[in-house]
Amino acid sequence: MKTVGILGGMGPEATILLMQKLLGAVPARDDSDHIPLIVHQNPQVPSRIKALIEGTGEDPGPTLARMARDLHAAGAEALAMPCNTAHHYSPVVVAATPLPFLNMLDLTAASLAAQGADRVGLLASPATRLAGVFDAPFAAHGLTPLFLNDDSRLLGIIRAVKAGEAAAVLKPRLAQEAQALLVQGADHLLVACTELSLMTDALPDEVPYTDSLDCLTQAIAAFALN
Amino acid sequence: MKTVGILGGMGPEATILLMQKLLGAVPARDDSDHIPLIVHQNPQVPSRIKALIEGTGEDPGPTLARMARDLHAAGAEALAMPCNTAHHYSPVVVAATPLPFLNMLDLTAASLAAQGADRVGLLASPATRLAGVFDAPFAAHGLTPLFLNDDSRLLGIIRAVKAGEAAAVLKPRLAQEAQALLVQGADHLLVACTELSLMTDALPDEVPYTDSLDCLTQAIAAFALN
Repeated sequence: MKTVGILGGMGPEATILLMQKLLGAVPARDDSDHIPLIVHQNPQVPSRIKALIEGTGEDPGPTLARMARDLHAAGAEALAMPCNTAHHYSPVVVAATPLPFLNMLDLTAASLAAQGADRVGLLASPATRLAGVFDAPFAAHGLTPLFLNDDSRLLGIIRAVKAGEAAAVLKPRLAQEAQALLVQGADHLLVACTELSLMTDALPDEVPYTDSLDCLTQAIAAFALN
Repeated sequence: MKTVGILGGMGPEATILLMQKLLGAVPARDDSDHIPLIVHQNPQVPSRIKALIEGTGEDPGPTLARMARDLHAAGAEALAMPCNTAHHYSPVVVAATPLPFLNMLDLTAASLAAQGADRVGLLASPATRLAGVFDAPFAAHGLTPLFLNDDSRLLGIIRAVKAGEAAAVLKPRLAQEAQALLVQGADHLLVACTELSLMTDALPDEVPYTDSLDCLTQAIAAFALN
């Protein structure tokens, strides 16, 4: 089995969720059946929201490049980053080491296209929208992105997750935002913020949904198990 | 904040539980309040049970030493290992790098003594008993260890956790073993296998319990937050 390095901590709960999903992704009879990881759980990566929305924060790029080099030094054989917005900095991560980078956004767009999605409603941070990280992967697969006309309430939900608010309180609020995307014409929903991956059972049943974190989970398992 | 390196994957769920406990150990208003970790999630560490009980398995020592060096190379400033039995190999881990090692068993014995425990019933793998890893820390604090007269059923529970059996099925079985330790005269229970840390709500109320993983959590938080 191959070891995958995780640029994590954005946020720390989402990184733990990825690790849990990876446990569920392999049929295991003992510890040794599970996938080896080296996880850089670094909650001190400068805020992507501050850097990209407010334009005032420290550049996260150098920190992410250092984490990639740390993971390489520790023996990782590929890299993955369970944060959609941070993929804005993926060229910096890719350039930092010779390792393959499992790009969550490319993987997600390919999965959406394979499922026949067309007008994809993104449950994403405004930072993800402003950085335009999904533009190229969506265009490459002929997908149309739909963002909320007003995503300030969704940002409030994401910030509340990071502040430790209970999921039970936030799920009804997330369900409302998902409904708004259906009204805007989405035929598929995309959970495009790993903080929201903790609450996918709040999504409506009317249309299918894809969680980018699940796409990354499958790719990590496929790489590790070869 | 300082970064702590985790020799993990023994088993992988226990490592994730430690990470979750660390999230709960700090009051957080945003990601950056949380503790930075580098986690070597290595489920392929040779089985401690095979090496110590059956005497047939590969020596886990060299793998653990390599993990310690990997974590050092990746920037860890201290090391911790959320597996009680693996502390049999702690001299090898300590020798592998110049980093401080947060010894879970020493921390646990100190906590038990501070709580006034005397006859401590260990819920532990037979490998932990056979390796005698708690002998010196207990002796240093004047604690008397009590092991189950027959710990084969407890080993069955631990193996079932590693094989993915549901906690709900295993908790009544764990409760029975805990009761047996009370009958043997324990005035305090020690959860001394991190696989069992997932099921502490099954323990009886009659006596207090300590979970060695909680002692390690506190020490990691104290080191990181300084």
